[in-house]
Amino acid sequence: MAHERPQKNKGLLAVFTGNGKGKTTSSLGLAFRALGHGQRVCIIQFIKGSWKYGELEAAKQFSSLLDFHVMGRGFTWKSDDLEKDKQVALDAWEFASKVIRENKYALVILDELTYLPYYKMIDEQEILSTITSRPSSQHVVVTGRYASAELIEAADLVTEMLEIKHPYKSGVSAQKGFEF
Amino acid sequence: MAHERPQKNKGLLAVFTGNGKGKTTSSLGLAFRALGHGQRVCIIQFIKGSWKYGELEAAKQFSSLLDFHVMGRGFTWKSDDLEKDKQVALDAWEFASKVIRENKYALVILDELTYLPYYKMIDEQEILSTITSRPSSQHVVVTGRYASAELIEAADLVTEMLEIKHPYKSGVSAQKGFEF
Repeated sequence: MAHERPQKNKGLLAVFTGNGKGKTTSSLGLAFRALGHGQRVCIIQFIKGSWKYGELEAAKQFSSLLDFHVMGRGFTWKSDDLEKDKQVALDAWEFASKVIRENKYALVILDELTYLPYYKMIDEQEILSTITSRPSSQHVVVTGRYASAELIEAADLVTEMLEIKHPYKSGVSAQKGFEF
Repeated sequence: MAHERPQKNKGLLAVFTGNGKGKTTSSLGLAFRALGHGQRVCIIQFIKGSWKYGELEAAKQFSSLLDFHVMGRGFTWKSDDLEKDKQVALDAWEFASKVIRENKYALVILDELTYLPYYKMIDEQEILSTITSRPSSQHVVVTGRYASAELIEAADLVTEMLEIKHPYKSGVSAQKGFEF
């Protein structure tokens, strides 16, 4: 008989996608919630700069439970050296795969991972294979625009954040403590 | 000359609406971010039960900066006593108005406030008037389905969370540390 994941404690795969604000912020909220349960959380940021000073400072309150990794050395998608960018992306993904497999965290947040397959930096099948074969109780959150149909198919929960209004478009600059 | 809000430090009004998961979770993420900046945050929950054990425990790490109020004594919209429900809603809103006016917080989160005008418990104009005349540097977040056109018009930032997939529909029960 094939092994089945115990339904009772199945880790969920959540995807926050779409062009609106709230994708990274929602994953931050989930981290906060899990930390409150005393669960270990790992946040891996694939695009440099999407996490700001505020959450990094707040995270220090939970330093025994929360590990935070900034990968990518600042992908800007404007590099002149595509091969180098690809290698950086591959290294980042390899690190994330290891984190998933090692099963030290109740929740693994792969922030802005979607851009890597979208920009052909990493093979999407490789990502899907790793995520869908993750430890059975582990929750994984993937954020970023352009989530693929395959990722959405594999997910348990998907929310599309639709931009209805954006403050920067109305001339308001980013506010301390409130940057999205 | 009319007074204008100083553009440099204008508090934003953000609205998270729509039928998808992530509305309350996003506001929680914003709270976390502001707390990391050492800013004071007030969360007012208008519908009992939308905030779970996880965030309440996590919030304790920031007890000097974060105040958390559960109003409504559990609106279920199934009460037999509409007048009593209305009074409870009015009391809750009066409390929130006071918090906004007193200007003790950099960020005030009005979680699931939208249901009160939607169910005709409170006059929407009263809410809009209070929110739009808030202290100039104060950020306010309103969450909940059915945000009105007027609220969206008044907001600086609006994201609609669209449900693409929901785990409970695929037979997965709520998971500790990951409840939305």
